[in-house]
Amino acid sequence: MPHAFRAPNPLLVNISARHCHLTPEAVEALFGKGATLTPIKWLYQKDQFAAKETVTLVGPRSRVISNLRILGPCRTLNQIELALTDSIALGFDVPIRFSGSIAGTPGCMLMGPNGFFEMKEGVIRAAPHVHMHPDDAAFYGVKGGDFMRLKVGGPCATTFDRMFVRVDPEFKLEVHIDTDEGNACALQPDTPVELTK
Amino acid sequence: MPHAFRAPNPLLVNISARHCHLTPEAVEALFGKGATLTPIKWLYQKDQFAAKETVTLVGPRSRVISNLRILGPCRTLNQIELALTDSIALGFDVPIRFSGSIAGTPGCMLMGPNGFFEMKEGVIRAAPHVHMHPDDAAFYGVKGGDFMRLKVGGPCATTFDRMFVRVDPEFKLEVHIDTDEGNACALQPDTPVELTK
Repeated sequence: MPHAFRAPNPLLVNISARHCHLTPEAVEALFGKGATLTPIKWLYQKDQFAAKETVTLVGPRSRVISNLRILGPCRTLNQIELALTDSIALGFDVPIRFSGSIAGTPGCMLMGPNGFFEMKEGVIRAAPHVHMHPDDAAFYGVKGGDFMRLKVGGPCATTFDRMFVRVDPEFKLEVHIDTDEGNACALQPDTPVELTK
Repeated sequence: MPHAFRAPNPLLVNISARHCHLTPEAVEALFGKGATLTPIKWLYQKDQFAAKETVTLVGPRSRVISNLRILGPCRTLNQIELALTDSIALGFDVPIRFSGSIAGTPGCMLMGPNGFFEMKEGVIRAAPHVHMHPDDAAFYGVKGGDFMRLKVGGPCATTFDRMFVRVDPEFKLEVHIDTDEGNACALQPDTPVELTK
């Protein structure tokens, strides 16, 4: 029996479009005192959601991205995740980072219906990564901080050779790649995918 | 000595941004009777150039891409090569094709200073490919129509598993990937690359 058929959980590969994570303070500055995020779509990871609220991002070339989706719940830091194509269009020289590792990254201005909010840092290109429960990590023989390979089949077959592993008992097995990566391999719902060490 | 050091020619990997190839008739319709393309930048492949002239492409969602670069010289068919990110923004359901294989692909409207030109078909996402002289093909042990792998190193290490091989005595060794593929692997001038069977 192929290895993957014995896996404790099915492998989901999802494309993360550009989005932001905000602190409660940023949400209030942008949407008004007492404002909170309103879930409109629950995501695969526990308690994570796409919010009804979006912001406008102003980049260094004075170009903007409107309707940038906020993902909730609120976090303890503000972070914007862009694909490299977005970054180039906006004029950001954006580094590849793991989520939460934002020291020294570019800042930006956000605009909401209640006003502006300046981020001193936090604009990143998120490194492609896989969320795993400890059971999945045991099955694949990896630990948090390791790198794996994601093989994507189909007419634009592509292997992502540095898939960062994140392990947490709250996580469900899910790969996150960005829109550039998803479009490069032309990922469709029925495209074959395989995660290997 | 590593294999690549014995190669007859250095391996160049270049990113092709969206562009179009036009017939002389299309150039005249868009730029006026007797109009021809003006080279402003010679490309790596013999006699190929980026033209001074650009067109505006109107997609099915009535969205446009302005300043779409024309590559010369003129060809016997009209073809527009977009990355999937471009296609999605414009509203095209664009197939992955080899250059010149445009039967059944979407059409579009082009706009130039002298008027419109309607393409009945020809909008594609070009499959990633490698141009090779027969000497290169002999070295790598491949022939036209084969597929190879392109391994790209660096922080976003990625392997393109279906690199289409094109062989012609006029060709110089050069890989063409599109902007989605180039951005997915964060290709820089010093990023290590390797072509393997």
